[in-house]
Order: sequence, then C-alpha cells, then structure tokens
Amino acid sequence: MPSIKAINHVAVVVDDMEKSLTFWRDALGLDLHELRDVPAEKSQVAFLPLAGAEVELVMPTSDDSGIAKYLAKRGPGMHHICLEVDDIVGMLAQLRSKNIRLINEEPRTTADGKQYIFIHPESTGGVLVELYQV
Amino acid sequence: MPSIKAINHVAVVVDDMEKSLTFWRDALGLDLHELRDVPAEKSQVAFLPLAGAEVELVMPTSDDSGIAKYLAKRGPGMHHICLEVDDIVGMLAQLRSKNIRLINEEPRTTADGKQYIFIHPESTGGVLVELYQV
Repeated sequence: MPSIKAINHVAVVVDDMEKSLTFWRDALGLDLHELRDVPAEKSQVAFLPLAGAEVELVMPTSDDSGIAKYLAKRGPGMHHICLEVDDIVGMLAQLRSKNIRLINEEPRTTADGKQYIFIHPESTGGVLVELYQV
Repeated sequence: MPSIKAINHVAVVVDDMEKSLTFWRDALGLDLHELRDVPAEKSQVAFLPLAGAEVELVMPTSDDSGIAKYLAKRGPGMHHICLEVDDIVGMLAQLRSKNIRLINEEPRTTADGKQYIFIHPESTGGVLVELYQV
C-alpha cells in the first residue's frame, strides 16, 4: 500500500518577497536557506527549512503564470501543502480508484528530479495538495 | 534568542467532516488518530498525524464562531499554519519590537496546557500563523 509519510512543505504565495521576508526571516527568525529564481515556474522562491518540513514563499515573476492568476484572484496567503509519498504511482492508482480529481494525470518531474502530482482542491475540501515521491 | 523549531500542524477548515475524511483518510490513507468535539472552540476537529507534523481538519459546530465566519466568507481550505517555538514570551517580545500585529497580545492556554498566540495575516503576507510553546 502506498503511504503518506510527512509534510514536505507549505507554500505561501506572496506579492512582495522582501516585505514577506521581513516577517518570516527577520521577525520570526527562520533561516533563509535559499532565494532562487525558478524561470520554469515564472517565480522566485524562498526556502525556509524547519525540522522535517519547510516553509516556501513563492512570488510570481510574470503575470501570465498559474500562481500569478491565483494571487490576482485570491490575494496573498497559503497556496498549497506538499506531502511526501513513498510510491507515487501506487498512490495515483489509489486516488483514481476513489474518483479523486487530479490536476496532472501523470507524475511530472521537478528540475532536481523529484516526481510530483497535484490533487485538485475540489476533491480535498478546498486545499491544493501536492504529492512528492521521496 | 527565541527560535522556531518546526511546523506543528496545518489546519484546514471544512464544511463537511465526513466528506473531507473520504479524501484525507480514505483516499490518501492518513491515520485518523482522533475525532474530537471541542466545545470551547465550537468545532469538531480531526487529527491526522504524520511524521513530525499533523494535518487537522476543523469543522465549525455553531455558526457564530470565528471559524464559522471564516468558512462563510472564504469557503473551505487551508486556515492556519502552526509553528513550534521554544520561548513564546521571548518571541512575543521580538515580534512586538518588529511591529508585528498579534491577534492575542498575551499567550492563551489550550485545554491540554499548551501556550499559544496567533499572528495577524496582515503582518505575515496573508497567512494566519499560530505559535505553540513546546
């Protein structure tokens, strides 16, 4: 049986990275491990690791991406939660058997080689859920 | 220096607990550790622990609570992220010195004795952030 192991990260969409970092890094004191431009996602991402899981701040760098449209529609705030799964192919089959609506039907691969899928908020109670194969 | 250690939980507000559990418990396979009525918060809460952090589903049981108003206004979805802090009094002083807006100015105590505060989304980039003293 495929199983979910842990929360990998919580992603927050922001409209002003420097201003957001004054809270997460400067006021809360989280370690800013990396601030990276991710051209493939037209975003800039700040990685703030904690024990076990990470907070990620995502700022659109173009106004025609999915994340930019989300920000325009809903404003800044929590965007998705990413869970770690040990068998993403098995989990996909399990989700399909329960009629769960997926955003991508087959796993995609991140730049650093991780397989992932997104589950549609319609099936989760309003939460965009990402699964990472670990 | 007070410091943030980990994500304790991510809370999701739901309008139909049984339907939500068909996703989180039945389709994803998370362990439903406890389903508890919390009269003080006029809510029913499902606790679904993972390694290190927990997913919590919160359903209002009355329409005059803060969480019920949130649900009516924004619909179901992610509600807040809770971070663990080793020194909540020190962290409060640090947040005040940075002019961070708090929802409760002094720590409150949960039924099981944990001290907590909430930070206003206005200061965090749109995210309701809870801090737990651990």
